[in-house]
Amino acid sequence: MSLTIQRDKNEFLYQQVISMIRHMESASTLRPGDRLPSLRQLSEKLSISIPTVKQAYGELERQGLIEARPKSGYFLKPSRYDAKQPKRVSLSQQPENVSRQSLIEKVFDAIQQDGVMPLGVANPSAVHSSDKALARIMRQVISKAGSRAIAYGPMDGYEPLKRQLAIRYLELGLQVDPHEVLVTNGAQEALSIALQCVAQAGDIIAVESPTYFGVLELIESLGMMALEIPLCPEEGVWVSDLASAIEEHEVKACIFSASISNPLGSFMSNETQKEIVELLESKNIPMIEDDVYGDLYFTERRGGSAQLFSKKGLVLSCSSFSKTAAPGYRIGWLLTNRFADKARRLKRAYSCSTSLLNQWTLSEFISSGEYERNMRSLRQGLRRNKDRMTALVHRYFPPGTRVSEPQGGGVLWLELPKGNDSEEIFYRALEHNISICPGSLFSPSDKFSRCIRISFGIPWSGKVENSLQQLGALCHK
Amino acid sequence: MSLTIQRDKNEFLYQQVISMIRHMESASTLRPGDRLPSLRQLSEKLSISIPTVKQAYGELERQGLIEARPKSGYFLKPSRYDAKQPKRVSLSQQPENVSRQSLIEKVFDAIQQDGVMPLGVANPSAVHSSDKALARIMRQVISKAGSRAIAYGPMDGYEPLKRQLAIRYLELGLQVDPHEVLVTNGAQEALSIALQCVAQAGDIIAVESPTYFGVLELIESLGMMALEIPLCPEEGVWVSDLASAIEEHEVKACIFSASISNPLGSFMSNETQKEIVELLESKNIPMIEDDVYGDLYFTERRGGSAQLFSKKGLVLSCSSFSKTAAPGYRIGWLLTNRFADKARRLKRAYSCSTSLLNQWTLSEFISSGEYERNMRSLRQGLRRNKDRMTALVHRYFPPGTRVSEPQGGGVLWLELPKGNDSEEIFYRALEHNISICPGSLFSPSDKFSRCIRISFGIPWSGKVENSLQQLGALCHK
Repeated sequence: MSLTIQRDKNEFLYQQVISMIRHMESASTLRPGDRLPSLRQLSEKLSISIPTVKQAYGELERQGLIEARPKSGYFLKPSRYDAKQPKRVSLSQQPENVSRQSLIEKVFDAIQQDGVMPLGVANPSAVHSSDKALARIMRQVISKAGSRAIAYGPMDGYEPLKRQLAIRYLELGLQVDPHEVLVTNGAQEALSIALQCVAQAGDIIAVESPTYFGVLELIESLGMMALEIPLCPEEGVWVSDLASAIEEHEVKACIFSASISNPLGSFMSNETQKEIVELLESKNIPMIEDDVYGDLYFTERRGGSAQLFSKKGLVLSCSSFSKTAAPGYRIGWLLTNRFADKARRLKRAYSCSTSLLNQWTLSEFISSGEYERNMRSLRQGLRRNKDRMTALVHRYFPPGTRVSEPQGGGVLWLELPKGNDSEEIFYRALEHNISICPGSLFSPSDKFSRCIRISFGIPWSGKVENSLQQLGALCHK
Repeated sequence: MSLTIQRDKNEFLYQQVISMIRHMESASTLRPGDRLPSLRQLSEKLSISIPTVKQAYGELERQGLIEARPKSGYFLKPSRYDAKQPKRVSLSQQPENVSRQSLIEKVFDAIQQDGVMPLGVANPSAVHSSDKALARIMRQVISKAGSRAIAYGPMDGYEPLKRQLAIRYLELGLQVDPHEVLVTNGAQEALSIALQCVAQAGDIIAVESPTYFGVLELIESLGMMALEIPLCPEEGVWVSDLASAIEEHEVKACIFSASISNPLGSFMSNETQKEIVELLESKNIPMIEDDVYGDLYFTERRGGSAQLFSKKGLVLSCSSFSKTAAPGYRIGWLLTNRFADKARRLKRAYSCSTSLLNQWTLSEFISSGEYERNMRSLRQGLRRNKDRMTALVHRYFPPGTRVSEPQGGGVLWLELPKGNDSEEIFYRALEHNISICPGSLFSPSDKFSRCIRISFGIPWSGKVENSLQQLGALCHK
C-alpha cells in the first residue's frame, strides 16, 4: 500500500503528515524503534516539499513521539507511555556481608536449559554477531601462526592486542602505556585482580546500588563487605551520598560502572566521574571502574573513563570483549595504573597467561576495522531492541510498572508494582521457559525484591514478544 | 657405511658385537637415547644368528650401556656416567613466608626474549607439537559451531570435554562424575581455586621440597605460609617426614605432585600415595595434587592419582592440557571431590566461564584419538631428549654435578658443585642468550641455591648442545 495523506483544506499539509504518522503508530504499522522514511523519501512519496516534512517531523519530535538520531534519521520513540524510571533507593549506611551465590547459580542454570528464552543473561553481542568475521580472521591467524597458535602467550598479554587497546584509549583522550594493560580471562578476572590489588578480606568496598551481581559475588568470595551507594537513574553515583558514606565508614575501595551501569543503564557524565575521582583520590581511596558496557552507548558520544581524571593513579579500569564481540573467547583487560606490578603478579599466580590465539584473533579483528564496523551495527541493533522491548513492557506489564531508560548496554531494569516478589517471578517464569534476573541479586540488602532485569540483547523474534506477554501476565497488578 | 664386525677368533661372536656397539658409542655414532638396530636387523646385517645378537644386547644391558623398552626396542642409556641424583634435603620444620615473585618475573621475562634458548621454561609439548592436528580440528569446530564458536560456555565447563576427561580417568580406575570436573583457565587456576576451597590467609600449607614455583607464588599471593616436606628423588614425598610435620604444625592443606614431580621428576608410587592420603585424611587435612605431568611418564605405566585412595573426599586434583597438547589454549581442570559447590562458586566469582571454543576443540581432539596418538610420540620424544640432555650435562658440566633421573615430565634438576650460585648463573647464562630456572625459586627457604632446572622439552638441535656446553662452562668447578 503506498503512502498517502487525506488532503484536507482545514489543515496545514504538515499537520496532515503528523496525522498520518500518528495513525500508522496507533495501528502498529510503525512500532517503537522503527525508522521513519527520510525527509527526501517522504517528500517524494507524498509529493510535498522537504521543508513541510521537516516541519512535521520537528513537531512530532517536540511532542515526544519520534526522535532524531545523528546520521541515522528519525525513529519512533517509546516515550508515549509516560513511563517513570525506577526510584532511587535510599542510602544504606551499613556495610553488608554478601550472600547471593546460591540464587546466582540458579539463574545461570536456567540460562543453560534448552529452549529457554534467555532474558536473564546479559549477552548483547548476540544482537549483531561477529561470529563470521571472527571465524574468518581466526582461520587466517591459525594458518599464519603455525605452532604459535597453540603456544603460551606472554604472561601479561599479547603485545599487538595491548597496542590496539592503547590506540582505542587514545580516542578517549587517554594515553595508555601498553605496559599498564594486563590482559585477563574476561572482565571478571580483571575485577578480581583489581580488587585484590587494593583490598583484602574484611575490608569495606563501596558499590553502586543496584550493582552487577558478579561484583557482589566477588566481594563475597574474597570475604569483604559491600557498602551500597545509591545509583541515580539519570546521573550515576550520587557524589553527596558517596561523600557521606566515606565520611562515616572506612571504605577501602570502590567498584563503580564507568559510563554505562548494569542493571540500570544509567549514564555517568565526565563531570560526575571527575567529581568522584577527585573526592576519592583526596582520601587515597582506589576506584575500580567496570567499563564493559562503555562502548555500547546510545548517547551521542561514548562516555569517558574515570582514568581521565586520575591524578594519583588510584583508578583501575576493567573491560572485555565479552559484551561487544566474543563472550566465549574470555578476553578482558585491566588498566593497572600504579598497581601494574602487583596486578601482573596476581595474574601470574592465579591463572598464568591468557589464551594467545584468542588474543591474536581479537587483535586482528580490531586492526582490520571489523570491530568498529561491527560495533556500529551492534549499537543500532541494541537501541532498536531497547525501544521495542520498552514498548512491550508498557503494553504487557501491569500499570505502575516502572522501567529504566538505559543510555546503553543490553538490559532493562523493571520495578514491579507492590505485591510482586522477583524471586517468585523468576521461578514462575522458568516454568514458562523464560529466564530473567531477579532484582534481589543486585543488592546485598534485598533492596530490589520487586525489581527484575531483562535483557534486550537477543536477536529479535516473535517469540520475544510472546515471552514478554507471558512474563507481564505473571506479575501481580 | 655398512655395519661390520672385526671377526676375531679369540672372541665369541657376541663379544665382537659388544665391541662394535661400544665403539660406535665412544665415536658418538650412537648417542644416548638413540635406538639400536632390532635383533632381526642386526642379525641380517652382520649375518649372525638372532640369539647371538640377543646375547650381546643382554650383556650390554647388564653393563648398563643400553636398555630395553617394552614394544620399542633397545636404546643407548646415559648411565655410563655414574651419575648421582641430587641429595635429599633435610626437613625444615619452620613454615616460611614466601617471597619469590620478583625473581620469577625475571625468569619469565628471559624466556620471552627473542633468540634466547628457552631452557628455563617447562614446555614439553613442543617436542612433538600437536599444532597441525589441533588447527585442523579447530577449523572444523569453527565451521560446525557457527555463532556458538564465540558464545559463552557453561560456567563449569563444556559437557562433552568433561565426559572425555571422565572416560580417561576410568582408565586409571577412577570413576569421576562429570559434575565433579570443573574446567579452569589452565592448571594454575585449578590450583588457585582448590587452595581457596580449603584454606585462607595465614594458614600453613605443606609443599614438597623442591616444589614448582607457581605453587609458592600462589601461596604467597594468598597470604599463606609454606612448610617444606623433603622430596625423595626416587620415591616422592617421605611419609615419615610428613607425619612429623603435621604432628608439629597445624597444617591446613598439602599441595603435592601426583605421580611425576616438578622439578625433580620423581615418581610417586601408588603405595606411597595411598599411605599419604590415609595419613592426611585421618587428620582431616585436604590434599591438592598437581597432576600436570602425570601423562608424560617414562615408566612402564602411568602413575595413579591420589583420588584413588581418598575415602573422605578430601583430595582435589589439578591438571591441564598445557604440558601435553596446547599450552596457549589455557584449558585445565579440577576434580573437586567434595568441594564441588565451593569450587564452582569461586570459579564463577574469579573468572566466570572458560573459553568454549578451546574446550570444544580439545574435546574433539581427545575423542578423535589424536590426543592419545600424539602423547605416545611425545613421551618417546621426551624420553629421547632426556637421555641426550643428561649425557650432555655429564659431558659439559663440572665434575661433582649431580643430575636427576626424571621418571617423566620435561625437566632436569641439577645440583652444581660447591661455590656455584644459581641466581648468578641465571644472569650469566642470559648474557649468552640462554634461559634457565634458578633453584632458589623452588623453595621459600633458599634450600636450592646451588641447583638449576633445565628443560629438555624443546625440539632438539645442534644449538641445544652448544647451549649446554656454554652453560656447563659458566659453572664453577
